[in-house]
Amino acid sequence: MRCGWRGRCPPTKSDQSDKSDKSVVLTDTIVALSTPPGAGALAVVRLSGPEAVAITQALFSKKNLAAQPGHTLHYGTLRDPESGLVLDEVVAALYRAPRSYTREDVVEISGHGSDFIVRQVLGALLRQGARLAEAGEFTKRAFLNGALDLAQAEAVADLIAADSALSHQVALNQLRGGFSDELRDLRAQLIKFAALLELELDFGEEDVEFADRTGLTRLLTEVQGVVSGLLRSFELGNVIKNGITTVIAGRPNAGKSTLLNALLREERAIVSAIPGTTRDFIEDEVSIDGLRFRFVDTAGLRDNPADEVEAIGVQRTRQRIGQAALLLYLFDLTTMMPAEVQADLAEFTAAHPKLPVLLVGNKQDAATPEQLSAFMQLNAQNPAFLAISAGQRLGLEELQEALLTQVRGAGLATSGTATIVTNVRHARALETAAEHLAAVQQGLATGRGTELLAADLRHALGALGEITGDISTDDLLTSIFTQFCIGK
Amino acid sequence: MRCGWRGRCPPTKSDQSDKSDKSVVLTDTIVALSTPPGAGALAVVRLSGPEAVAITQALFSKKNLAAQPGHTLHYGTLRDPESGLVLDEVVAALYRAPRSYTREDVVEISGHGSDFIVRQVLGALLRQGARLAEAGEFTKRAFLNGALDLAQAEAVADLIAADSALSHQVALNQLRGGFSDELRDLRAQLIKFAALLELELDFGEEDVEFADRTGLTRLLTEVQGVVSGLLRSFELGNVIKNGITTVIAGRPNAGKSTLLNALLREERAIVSAIPGTTRDFIEDEVSIDGLRFRFVDTAGLRDNPADEVEAIGVQRTRQRIGQAALLLYLFDLTTMMPAEVQADLAEFTAAHPKLPVLLVGNKQDAATPEQLSAFMQLNAQNPAFLAISAGQRLGLEELQEALLTQVRGAGLATSGTATIVTNVRHARALETAAEHLAAVQQGLATGRGTELLAADLRHALGALGEITGDISTDDLLTSIFTQFCIGK
Repeated sequence: MRCGWRGRCPPTKSDQSDKSDKSVVLTDTIVALSTPPGAGALAVVRLSGPEAVAITQALFSKKNLAAQPGHTLHYGTLRDPESGLVLDEVVAALYRAPRSYTREDVVEISGHGSDFIVRQVLGALLRQGARLAEAGEFTKRAFLNGALDLAQAEAVADLIAADSALSHQVALNQLRGGFSDELRDLRAQLIKFAALLELELDFGEEDVEFADRTGLTRLLTEVQGVVSGLLRSFELGNVIKNGITTVIAGRPNAGKSTLLNALLREERAIVSAIPGTTRDFIEDEVSIDGLRFRFVDTAGLRDNPADEVEAIGVQRTRQRIGQAALLLYLFDLTTMMPAEVQADLAEFTAAHPKLPVLLVGNKQDAATPEQLSAFMQLNAQNPAFLAISAGQRLGLEELQEALLTQVRGAGLATSGTATIVTNVRHARALETAAEHLAAVQQGLATGRGTELLAADLRHALGALGEITGDISTDDLLTSIFTQFCIGK
Repeated sequence: MRCGWRGRCPPTKSDQSDKSDKSVVLTDTIVALSTPPGAGALAVVRLSGPEAVAITQALFSKKNLAAQPGHTLHYGTLRDPESGLVLDEVVAALYRAPRSYTREDVVEISGHGSDFIVRQVLGALLRQGARLAEAGEFTKRAFLNGALDLAQAEAVADLIAADSALSHQVALNQLRGGFSDELRDLRAQLIKFAALLELELDFGEEDVEFADRTGLTRLLTEVQGVVSGLLRSFELGNVIKNGITTVIAGRPNAGKSTLLNALLREERAIVSAIPGTTRDFIEDEVSIDGLRFRFVDTAGLRDNPADEVEAIGVQRTRQRIGQAALLLYLFDLTTMMPAEVQADLAEFTAAHPKLPVLLVGNKQDAATPEQLSAFMQLNAQNPAFLAISAGQRLGLEELQEALLTQVRGAGLATSGTATIVTNVRHARALETAAEHLAAVQQGLATGRGTELLAADLRHALGALGEITGDISTDDLLTSIFTQFCIGK
């Protein structure tokens, strides 16, 4: 089901039956400031619940809101009904259930953006019977009322936190139901087989096979392919959501900090400076072609620690390299010998055999042709090296391109249209599903009994259903037999 | 004219003729983020201008906005028309000219509260032909199109900045036109007389008197009364807007910092700690009964400065007392002699003869009945003293009551319903008007020529007109609206 942010789809039969066990009668009306706090032109206070309109009306003068249709805007004055004091001049946006974000009656009061006014307005609404909403409670209601499934609801939070083009696209795709759709089709097919297997159990004495084993095997292979594809996408999803940690390593005076500054200057607007916890530890982020790189400057790594504080710094830097997705090894073309670079690289490779390495020679502008060609010969055994000048800002575009190529080569990039798993909970559920699907697959191959097959299939379906929140294990059978309606 | 925040009044004849000299044809469409930046549930991007709907439509799918009436809400998808990428799922609030805040077509796009998304949406809207709004430009358009007068427009900024109940009420009263109404009636009557005086000038040769001198004198007296009343309210307005600076002075160990902390704990939620520029200088704010008090702790005032830094601190503290509206002199009931207190008081009174003083004895819980009664005898010649215990939090409510009484006694408080001038620009204009009105008044008494009377009356009318913006210059408008936040 594709229901957008302020879901416009009417509740469907299947939604309701799917969720009947956990439906909560939400009789209270919740309220919260929905825009960021602080001074601004506008602040929006949002109410949702059966009394949203009545509670607003208690403060609102100039119009009878109860008589107004949904999806309309009403200018008026908010007055504290107890003190009679005017609180603000506002516009009330009216949404009627079920055509609202939560599928309840919703009022969004748009007033002047002042924390003081917001406090006064919230206070007056609470005294009229509204309850302060808990974190995420509007979206929770949207889920409970069937406007969003669980994965879509989770995408709302991701979308708000998104700060690069790719993380934004992935969250939006998930919110728009892309992820859920992919699972739902496969799950619907699996459910049919599960129901047939359960039917066999009912007729167990008679040794019938309602479920076509060949068809089931084919379907299982297909589902396993999708599930393991989604699981593989999780590594990428994590990178998109959290950024690609790229350690810049190298000997002192290789120009690491200059390079860091040069890279950051490219898109200063979205740089966020995070001061390190130790003096030798600088971390900064920059978005390249929609992918967020988190660069770690490891100045001092190869220094002999002068004191205990510095030793701790070096130790932490080494830990950071352990967590990195990419190593950018920077060396000074004018002072280093190819053999020294090879020795450094060998050391890193021994310590972190799986870490992709980008080899970058700095101070190209000052290097002699002999120095440059000496390093060219390294290319045979090593990753191709890139000559740049961080100080002169030469070769930086090529370096960014090389970073993207490395990431794409490691499978850590995408066109942005594929479905990508970014949520740990989803990844865990997919893992569980994959295990049980493999067990079913193996059971079919070894001719295991229907009962065991059915149990594993139930577990797999439960795990997949947990992702969208459609189903918990308990109502699986109810759901299946209601659909099949064999009068049992 | 009473037009509220999102003015719904149709443009009137008199508005247009008043402003015809400076009307600007606003053909471009402006856009800005109108909610505070940062992560939140909602962010609102606002467009105003003739192309507001068309520009939104270029990104908006699911509905033809051009065909929709004003004051309606429309759910849809925003897509970058160039890249085709989905930007967000949003609700567009549609306002049709002249029924909008600016009296132009206005669209408020309510999307997910993420800075990243807002940047993408703003970027796409700008590429479709919108222009980024300058600070205060929406409100400036509301003024230029006659939805708000200048004093009301200025109240919008005050309202957003208001952080106490009284400053909020004063700004709201001004926004709702209370201040402007008061001026407008008087100005209209003065204009009649001015017109009659001008008429006399046209018939100068014939020595006629169209304007009734007695009636003019009566009206002038009335207007002068209102203007000087408004001017008197400015001192109060300033206090309401900026807080009442209350210096806590006293000898070392009198318990000044304990008292400061005890007072702040009363409403910790709205306390804002401003660390002083010198180590001996602490300043904090607390709202008592809607009035904001800014307490200044002057620890170290009577110490002999140990070094140059401390001497500067003491000097600054003395300056701060010079700027204070109220002095709270705190002494230790258990160690001070009444004569010492009197000597200290005399010193303060000599230096600041006009400063109201509140006399407070601390450590009441540890004082003997003899000590307490010794101070009671001071009451005859001095301000009544109050016994408290800051450490035990005894007598604090009485102290707050006494602070309010002092402020009210000094004419620095109000019921909140009267019209109060809070704006320096308005006070200056009122002063100018008062001077010229006095000159007219004097001219009438001494039988000065009509020409001189008419000139002074024109100046007075000009000054009054500047307040509401009936008479304004581009420079004035620029200086007012650049103080606004962007998006308002």
